[in-house]
Amino acid sequence: MTVLTDYLWFNTTERQEFIRITDQVAAIVTRSGVEEGMVLVSAMHITAAVYVNDWEDGLIHDFQVWLEKLAPSGRDYRHHQTGEDNADAHLKRTLMGHQVLLPITNGKLDLGPWEQVFYAEFDGQRKKRVVVKVMGTT
Amino acid sequence: MTVLTDYLWFNTTERQEFIRITDQVAAIVTRSGVEEGMVLVSAMHITAAVYVNDWEDGLIHDFQVWLEKLAPSGRDYRHHQTGEDNADAHLKRTLMGHQVLLPITNGKLDLGPWEQVFYAEFDGQRKKRVVVKVMGTT
Amino acid sequence: MTVLTDYLWFNTTERQEFIRITDQVAAIVTRSGVEEGMVLVSAMHITAAVYVNDWEDGLIHDFQVWLEKLAPSGRDYRHHQTGEDNADAHLKRTLMGHQVLLPITNGKLDLGPWEQVFYAEFDGQRKKRVVVKVMGTT
Repeated sequence: MTVLTDYLWFNTTERQEFIRITDQVAAIVTRSGVEEGMVLVSAMHITAAVYVNDWEDGLIHDFQVWLEKLAPSGRDYRHHQTGEDNADAHLKRTLMGHQVLLPITNGKLDLGPWEQVFYAEFDGQRKKRVVVKVMGTT
Repeated sequence: MTVLTDYLWFNTTERQEFIRITDQVAAIVTRSGVEEGMVLVSAMHITAAVYVNDWEDGLIHDFQVWLEKLAPSGRDYRHHQTGEDNADAHLKRTLMGHQVLLPITNGKLDLGPWEQVFYAEFDGQRKKRVVVKVMGTT
Repeated sequence: MTVLTDYLWFNTTERQEFIRITDQVAAIVTRSGVEEGMVLVSAMHITAAVYVNDWEDGLIHDFQVWLEKLAPSGRDYRHHQTGEDNADAHLKRTLMGHQVLLPITNGKLDLGPWEQVFYAEFDGQRKKRVVVKVMGTT
């Protein structure tokens, strides 16, 4: 069995930003040589999400409006008594999910026609990481 | 290590439908011969979910009412400017989760007494797939 | 490939309780001898969650207030016609997620600086289990 680990680094210019990472993940899978297996893509920070959904700007806007409604910023969260101001980012990332596990079949990401992998940053403007771990047979 | 990949196909008669798939997943695990490992069950379409919860019609009704409240259909989503009318389905699937990873112990799904695997369709009446990928030792 | 399975048992004194389990999971990983791989941590009951987020009491309080708002207890859920009173616990666990898959690199949990693993109980005061399954190379 082969295991390959890599990390993607992000430092967004905006506090909130959604970044498509399908191609970076696919490149790591190719580099691993794994033909049959799985790849874990997981945010290493707790105010960011990794999720699979549509690559369509309107929908990404809808996600952002919806998350702000369900997990509003600027409220009097108890977490803010520590000096932080990002409790909403922890909640938003929870709604979107912190990781995905993608199947690898015949050496490629085995995704449906519209599946794209995204990194969703909810408290950016600092360096953050995503771990990408491939596991399978070559 | 053994890896086996299979796909479940769905074409629901209703736009929204929740379908129990525990037995189909268990049959694929049996067919793989894997004794110790894991099986990934993941929706390949971005308006459907795969989740683990109770096999009880009342609760499934509660899930549907709740999802409609948190992610209502028929709103003026920006995604609909593309001609789509299913933005709520993308949000609902996000709340329910798009995949599960189930442990296999002694050749069987290692589930708690009430754990059942479901496919939740939020934009059906068309052909859709779920990937089932088994990985482990025989 | 090595696969090791273990179970964590919980019997909370409160109906709702959030318990940090990072150290227990790390100990199982060490015991497995796996150097490169992954560990699945998954609730075996459908009114409990396993999630990764911050070890900060204020934020845990915020999570609880937020979950009660999005998935209130004490409502007239149809699931309660079965005699149950815990429909909200099923919804809350769905929001928090039922499992995580953690990377193992160089024999250790490969977590970001603030990542902690939690068991979130929403219908406690009874015996419940979490499965921990390690898979990888030694």
